[in-house]
Amino acid sequence: MTKHVKTAISPTRAEDYPEWYQQVVRASDMAENSPVRGCMVIKPWGYAIWENIMRILNELFKATGVKNAYFPLFIPLSFLEKEAEHVEGFAKECAVVSHHRLEKGPNGGLVPAGPLKEPLIIRPTSETIIGDAFSKWISSYRDLPILINQWANIVRWEMRPRIFLRTSEFLWQEGHTAHAAKEEAIERTHMMLDLYAQFVEQYLAMPVMRGKKSAAERFPGAVDTLCIEAMMQDRKALQAGTSHFLGQNFARASDIKFQSAEEKEEYAWTTSWGTSTRLIGGLIMTHSDDDGLVLPPKIASSHVVLLPIIRKADDRPRVMEFTESLAKELKDKFYCDRRLEIEIDDREIGGARGWDWIKKGIPIRVEIGPRDIDDNSVFVGRRDMAHKDKKSFKRDSFIRQVTDILDEIQESLFERALMFRKLHSVTIEDKKTFIEFFTPENKEKPEIHGGFASSCWCGSEKCESKIKQDLSVSIRCVPLFSIKEKGRCIYCGQPARQRVIFAKAY
Amino acid sequence: MTKHVKTAISPTRAEDYPEWYQQVVRASDMAENSPVRGCMVIKPWGYAIWENIMRILNELFKATGVKNAYFPLFIPLSFLEKEAEHVEGFAKECAVVSHHRLEKGPNGGLVPAGPLKEPLIIRPTSETIIGDAFSKWISSYRDLPILINQWANIVRWEMRPRIFLRTSEFLWQEGHTAHAAKEEAIERTHMMLDLYAQFVEQYLAMPVMRGKKSAAERFPGAVDTLCIEAMMQDRKALQAGTSHFLGQNFARASDIKFQSAEEKEEYAWTTSWGTSTRLIGGLIMTHSDDDGLVLPPKIASSHVVLLPIIRKADDRPRVMEFTESLAKELKDKFYCDRRLEIEIDDREIGGARGWDWIKKGIPIRVEIGPRDIDDNSVFVGRRDMAHKDKKSFKRDSFIRQVTDILDEIQESLFERALMFRKLHSVTIEDKKTFIEFFTPENKEKPEIHGGFASSCWCGSEKCESKIKQDLSVSIRCVPLFSIKEKGRCIYCGQPARQRVIFAKAY
Repeated sequence: MTKHVKTAISPTRAEDYPEWYQQVVRASDMAENSPVRGCMVIKPWGYAIWENIMRILNELFKATGVKNAYFPLFIPLSFLEKEAEHVEGFAKECAVVSHHRLEKGPNGGLVPAGPLKEPLIIRPTSETIIGDAFSKWISSYRDLPILINQWANIVRWEMRPRIFLRTSEFLWQEGHTAHAAKEEAIERTHMMLDLYAQFVEQYLAMPVMRGKKSAAERFPGAVDTLCIEAMMQDRKALQAGTSHFLGQNFARASDIKFQSAEEKEEYAWTTSWGTSTRLIGGLIMTHSDDDGLVLPPKIASSHVVLLPIIRKADDRPRVMEFTESLAKELKDKFYCDRRLEIEIDDREIGGARGWDWIKKGIPIRVEIGPRDIDDNSVFVGRRDMAHKDKKSFKRDSFIRQVTDILDEIQESLFERALMFRKLHSVTIEDKKTFIEFFTPENKEKPEIHGGFASSCWCGSEKCESKIKQDLSVSIRCVPLFSIKEKGRCIYCGQPARQRVIFAKAY
Repeated sequence: MTKHVKTAISPTRAEDYPEWYQQVVRASDMAENSPVRGCMVIKPWGYAIWENIMRILNELFKATGVKNAYFPLFIPLSFLEKEAEHVEGFAKECAVVSHHRLEKGPNGGLVPAGPLKEPLIIRPTSETIIGDAFSKWISSYRDLPILINQWANIVRWEMRPRIFLRTSEFLWQEGHTAHAAKEEAIERTHMMLDLYAQFVEQYLAMPVMRGKKSAAERFPGAVDTLCIEAMMQDRKALQAGTSHFLGQNFARASDIKFQSAEEKEEYAWTTSWGTSTRLIGGLIMTHSDDDGLVLPPKIASSHVVLLPIIRKADDRPRVMEFTESLAKELKDKFYCDRRLEIEIDDREIGGARGWDWIKKGIPIRVEIGPRDIDDNSVFVGRRDMAHKDKKSFKRDSFIRQVTDILDEIQESLFERALMFRKLHSVTIEDKKTFIEFFTPENKEKPEIHGGFASSCWCGSEKCESKIKQDLSVSIRCVPLFSIKEKGRCIYCGQPARQRVIFAKAY
């Protein structure tokens, strides 16, 4: 007989994974849906994570010579139309600005007025508007390379929005570079992919697979799209960042030309690369458990919560004094290039208080009661361990060890995620096993199944599209440095062109 | 006979101030107009200033308990209409989103499709969408105060755009707070005004006057608007920040209610406060001269440029070695909570190179030639002094003193701006002098005139509006703590209600 264990989040992952995700977001107080369909409100506990992402990526970008800038929110329709594949890729999700004021309508209410001569599109990405600027900034090879990044909001109209993962408005960074030589642009595309992989693994503790997209999954207008793919706990893949080699496509569209050292006029070679608030969705689905959010310390909104235990009013002064002096000492310590962020929660609401912080995913909880103070010690719980598994530390010893404990948590989360991915990554060589792998046992009930399948593919888009239609499975990537295969395509049986990673995906 | 002195910027301030401003922006490479009318591209040299503004304000906000969050770009029209004065104030400059996709039109080109049931407005400010969130977050007095800030892009359609000063899209921060008690909300309104004044004076080196707006100049929907006003070098005023006490107006509009400690249901008291990329326009117009931009060190994109002087190819290795080792040592130093930002410019373009950095406003220029190296010294120019007024420093002495020099520059810029404002601030008690003060001598030719006039006002909006119509002069503010006046209104001669500051304004 299984003992019934109550969890802080209901339903659990096993019971209903999509609903579990919504409940984790809600219980952690990170974000909520807004009254504007598809748009979210990012609350302070969630936004702090985005601020950490911005801070760390800014440092990493800067070290490679990239500088930040800002370009207009609006893109004239004619700009978007300059690159045929590009506009086709985004046409179905473009928010269109048609008027520039409001005036009293026939019924007394306000109606749009001042129609624009040319409609403006709210940027779904900025290749065309930044390309226009590049065309003015660049005239000689001496002006190259140009290495620019922008932090901005993006709009892509979503018919099936899902908080953090797919929202009509989201926040992102988009890097845009222009180079004199093709090789240099390709090198930059790979450099940024590696930077993303390093960032996501080391800071978000999410193991990722690096690869190249198939033609069908490419960024509209790109020559090559490189990507990093992570595995969520429902074994689906989440694309966590992309880096595009754009060849001369956008240079031709935006007329980005330069005079070479040999005094010939040439088109520049461009790249673009981005990550977004979607990363926060990936972070949640990689680490969280049935008790709520679990935050890797390096990216956490806060590191430690102090929970003074006050059973009698008399105890309050000395318990609070101890708590505040401990907070002060902890705040002087550095972890991952910032001071430790310490919360004090002295609400008198009993056990609910500890659970609130578990659901918020804070890495370390510290209980401080009169008896702990008598012993000059504190009682420490870690979010990566069972809740009851708390440990007493002498005060000084805790202060000395706190950053080591944070490192241990960071490492244990990465290891756990890596083990999970390994467990659900398989090599499949026959069609029957492939279909079984991606088919739930009970079609009525949502259920966790599948994973990453490494299988051979013939290279045909038709076959790729059939697999997607039949099984909702897509090619996540062609792993970089994959060797040529002699086998047969897992689906159509034709001679294989290469081995690829198949998965269901967000 | 006056000797003709050539300036790096043409026209000079005296010749054509508005055109001088455009040329300073262009020559400094801070920003440019985009192909989207009224929208600007903020280039790296300009964006770095905005990043410094964000970094410093974030620290100052955080110290008062404010947390960052993010709210949707889109506001449903019905939300904006909830507060009558508010929507009226913004209706003429609202960008309206009407459709959510594009499809092939009859002529083959793309046309807007997927009309929205309710038009969405791109936020001209976020009181109504944030108020909606607050109404859900707040139920008891225990949930108060809520202290939120957002960094975001804002759209207010401009018919006469001017880079940084008035653009259809701009970047800003908007703070929004809700309180249980009226006094506490008023206190927060003043606290944020003081914080802005301190920030603008200490970091941007712009002296400001604090005051309250007249009813006509108030934020639409506010009970009171507090402001800081700075004087530009054409003696016009620029509003550099505002802090609004909103009373219960927006709480009523958005239904922000809470149960008080006495178990009564009450409307919350709210505030909002903001500063924008307009500050960069103010910064330019406060400090720059006829040779271009002048940046206060605390907010400067970079602090020091090193200019290796290489006359013979043979010299290059040792000059560059000296330059790079100096850069390395300088970069280890801290100034105003960040590491010194050092540029090295080794282009071989002669004198144009030094002028480029003068036009970019970098606080310190350091020339390094073979003879300086022989003497283990460097040749230092300061942007706040005459260009020829350079001084030799022993290398170690320069490194030791560099942050003191930056402090001196910061201080001298503030003192200079303060002197300028004092020189052009007058008390005027008679109408004739008042009219003369605000009337250019030669109406054909743009010319710098006027300043801040402290004069009595009757308190009537009609009189205020007449002054604006006749002289293009507005009431910039009622100084805080102004005493009641017994005099007569400067314009209509009726008994005065108070003394106010009149000026022409941006």
